[in-house]
Amino acid sequence: MKEEKRDVLTASIKDLTIDEAIVIINHEDAEELELKAGDKVFVYDPAKSNLKTTATLILSRDLVERGRIILSSRIARKIDVSEASPIKITQAPPPKSIDYIKEKMKGGKLDQMKIKTIIDEMVEGTVGKVEIMSFVLSEQFYGMDMDEIEYLTRAIYESGEIIEFNKPAYDKHSIGGVPGNKVSLLIVPIIAASGLLIPKTSSRAITSPSGTADTMEVLADVNLSVEEFKKVAEKTNGALIWGGALNLAPADDIIIRVERIMGLDPVPQMLASIMGKKMAAGINTMVLDIPVGKETKMESIDKAIDFARKVIELGNRIGIRVQAGITYGEQPVGHNIGPALEAKEALEALIKPKEAPASLVEKSCSLAGLLLEMSGKAPLGMGHQMAKEILYSGKAYEKMKEIIEAQGGNPNIKPEEIPLGEYKYEVYAPVDGFVTQVSNRALKEIARAAGAPKDKGAGLILHVKRGRKVTARDKILEIYAERSVRLQDAISVLETMPPIVIEGMLLRTIPERQIYTFSHYESSQGSSSE
Amino acid sequence: MKEEKRDVLTASIKDLTIDEAIVIINHEDAEELELKAGDKVFVYDPAKSNLKTTATLILSRDLVERGRIILSSRIARKIDVSEASPIKITQAPPPKSIDYIKEKMKGGKLDQMKIKTIIDEMVEGTVGKVEIMSFVLSEQFYGMDMDEIEYLTRAIYESGEIIEFNKPAYDKHSIGGVPGNKVSLLIVPIIAASGLLIPKTSSRAITSPSGTADTMEVLADVNLSVEEFKKVAEKTNGALIWGGALNLAPADDIIIRVERIMGLDPVPQMLASIMGKKMAAGINTMVLDIPVGKETKMESIDKAIDFARKVIELGNRIGIRVQAGITYGEQPVGHNIGPALEAKEALEALIKPKEAPASLVEKSCSLAGLLLEMSGKAPLGMGHQMAKEILYSGKAYEKMKEIIEAQGGNPNIKPEEIPLGEYKYEVYAPVDGFVTQVSNRALKEIARAAGAPKDKGAGLILHVKRGRKVTARDKILEIYAERSVRLQDAISVLETMPPIVIEGMLLRTIPERQIYTFSHYESSQGSSSE
Repeated sequence: MKEEKRDVLTASIKDLTIDEAIVIINHEDAEELELKAGDKVFVYDPAKSNLKTTATLILSRDLVERGRIILSSRIARKIDVSEASPIKITQAPPPKSIDYIKEKMKGGKLDQMKIKTIIDEMVEGTVGKVEIMSFVLSEQFYGMDMDEIEYLTRAIYESGEIIEFNKPAYDKHSIGGVPGNKVSLLIVPIIAASGLLIPKTSSRAITSPSGTADTMEVLADVNLSVEEFKKVAEKTNGALIWGGALNLAPADDIIIRVERIMGLDPVPQMLASIMGKKMAAGINTMVLDIPVGKETKMESIDKAIDFARKVIELGNRIGIRVQAGITYGEQPVGHNIGPALEAKEALEALIKPKEAPASLVEKSCSLAGLLLEMSGKAPLGMGHQMAKEILYSGKAYEKMKEIIEAQGGNPNIKPEEIPLGEYKYEVYAPVDGFVTQVSNRALKEIARAAGAPKDKGAGLILHVKRGRKVTARDKILEIYAERSVRLQDAISVLETMPPIVIEGMLLRTIPERQIYTFSHYESSQGSSSE
Repeated sequence: MKEEKRDVLTASIKDLTIDEAIVIINHEDAEELELKAGDKVFVYDPAKSNLKTTATLILSRDLVERGRIILSSRIARKIDVSEASPIKITQAPPPKSIDYIKEKMKGGKLDQMKIKTIIDEMVEGTVGKVEIMSFVLSEQFYGMDMDEIEYLTRAIYESGEIIEFNKPAYDKHSIGGVPGNKVSLLIVPIIAASGLLIPKTSSRAITSPSGTADTMEVLADVNLSVEEFKKVAEKTNGALIWGGALNLAPADDIIIRVERIMGLDPVPQMLASIMGKKMAAGINTMVLDIPVGKETKMESIDKAIDFARKVIELGNRIGIRVQAGITYGEQPVGHNIGPALEAKEALEALIKPKEAPASLVEKSCSLAGLLLEMSGKAPLGMGHQMAKEILYSGKAYEKMKEIIEAQGGNPNIKPEEIPLGEYKYEVYAPVDGFVTQVSNRALKEIARAAGAPKDKGAGLILHVKRGRKVTARDKILEIYAERSVRLQDAISVLETMPPIVIEGMLLRTIPERQIYTFSHYESSQGSSSE
């Protein structure tokens, strides 16, 4: 009889890692259940039908016997079942969001219920990557008004854990795009030393050579639970941790994973992403660093100002006070790029601020100064000076040691003790002249080819910045790698993407590899770092 | 030593069905190979490195031991390996198309090389669904000019097998959207009987209750290989088969699978899809049926005319002569919907054309007439009459019997011998009046809920068309199903989506389920079909 069918399978839990949730059943069971390969199905224990999850169905005659269903341990945890538990699978109904996303694909305006449904179904997994891409691309094409952006922000905020602190929480955030931007490692201890609470969560690098979390990880543990995070913040007033393990605004992570595939980052999504996460992290007051210039996310001042206005308005709507700082973003902040090299430079700046690069100290103190003014700690216009005093007094360094210790690191580590990659390549100026161009993009690609951020000791030191006069044979760049093969990779990138242009220098000669082309360097490959 | 690693695995071939190509290896091997779950990898036998395929990587500690790699038998066939063959997997480089798709996402115009690369990488599997959706949605947003459409058509055409016939091949194609459109089952035998070659490949239903291939399958085998197809066509001058098994323009199928997710079908893609497939199928001359009206793909005559002009221009560019016929599409063609019911109605029309519905006979003869005129068989303006003569003479029916026989069916089957679903539900007019509305969409949904196209005997008979006068208690609709549960499903849909509106009829009363609402029918559920 067709109507009578075995509709409960037996769990067979396997270790299984894949981007998407999958389950595997036998072809014949699938036929009986009227399911096809690739179907989205609800998976649950019939006794716990409130704990449903969505997965994509894979069929196999060999991997799984009849009556059994292979689940990953992650799914098993999610629906609270163990080996041999009874499992039901049923065709998941088409997500409601499909119709709402279609509306946006035609340029419609979505109300709060529709946006919330889209975000909720993304987190449930009923809405897949293709649907998410359609939504984000439509945002890019048609834009979103402030109402929609607010709904999106709130839906993202509500998609995961929510942290609250027992006093006002300050934060600094950068929209990113500039390599070597280790300012958070100065700002957090400056602000915490002033007595304000600054519990900073940050991300790991996605396309850059080092995220703030990657850099801080050289000095301390950044993989903290919510409880540990709150303990550190309450004890020291500061924290610098990776936000990824806290399950804050998981919808945002899901969207970012899809956006990345096509390098997409529409303004409405960027706003909702930043502010949704900050809401969930319990932030009340923040400064937003908006780097401007070629090869950054904001190519013109006008775009940056427009973005700043929107983020401030959005902040007003959701209860976060925001000030935006528009900063120069066409070359790296400081000289060092890569986790260990950036941690080293930040630590040096905390210890000997007078010897630190002006770009690093000034940017850090400007942004920290805005926070001090917003809090009332500093009178208007005096924040920058107060931040600098805290830094120069050594209080910021003392505070950083406390934070490092509270996060399980060695507070007494010296900058020169931080291990760097043992494979090194030095680049010299081929001619006399002025540095007319420094390419963020080329520097990023070289540092990543050298192994950053995965290889903590990989990266580079940029010895010159734009406008600097150089003499032929001056050292202008050093590349570090932990593995010789990676150093070779980095050198290959260097040869196709000149990161530094000196006026008068030949960019390329034909035939290639003639004298005076940019690839004509001295090499000290294999020498240990200074 | 990090640099030395096991880089050849051993094949373990399993039966495995999933929408996407996947391979499974052990976590530890992945770590050594520096690969992550979800990575796109090239999979190949090192001795046959020209036969690479792309797959998504899944990791498991339990399902696969170290040194082994689980491949589906489909992948194994594709790269020509057998159990225990050595297999290399390497990170697939980012597809070149990403940059080209990004250009289109910004509204750029793509040249032939770029469009060809995008299509080729889709077929190779290096470009995934998200990228394909980004491409198609950008086509929708920005449109494409005729050059781009031509490049797209040629790239789709070149993506698979190419069929050639030894004499000019004619075809009829409909852009779809109208249920009950069984005209191909009349047109093919009419044209073949005239002495022209009409080797028709068609699709199965995607969102409709029956595709031409589903309908023809009631009468004969439609699952033919290229050789069998050519043999049938050469023998009978006609054929009505499913195109899906021929590997014609596989890029088109890949794109359609993605478009379907969001119900997207932008005009440039539609043009390239139709014409790329026709090129690959060896067609030289065709008529294109463009149904117009509410709930069809072309909502206005203007859109239909614009589409017709484009398809003709595209035909000129690629060497296919096209005439477009714009037809009325707001209600079904004929009365029957669903594979068996449509096959029955078509066969009845071939046997007794005088008793057949005018909408079916006239539409079939009009479109067939255009082909007869294009071929020179009929003088201009005389094609329709010639088609009708062929139909009325019985020659079309004789030809259809030949085709059915050549495709392995029973040529002598009587319409009344075609099995219909044994569960039936009848709907009667609740009031006297004129039929003011017939909803294609509602009819489709009801027929699909009843089980069509999977259950061949499921579907419906529409006893009235728009404008018809009815008297209360006239039978207006019959629903057929093979399973009682499906009949119930169809009745549920019927109650929420009225397929027929009679002037004076209450569409809904409040509170619901009062007398004279549309759901107030007589039921003859369970009675066998006539």
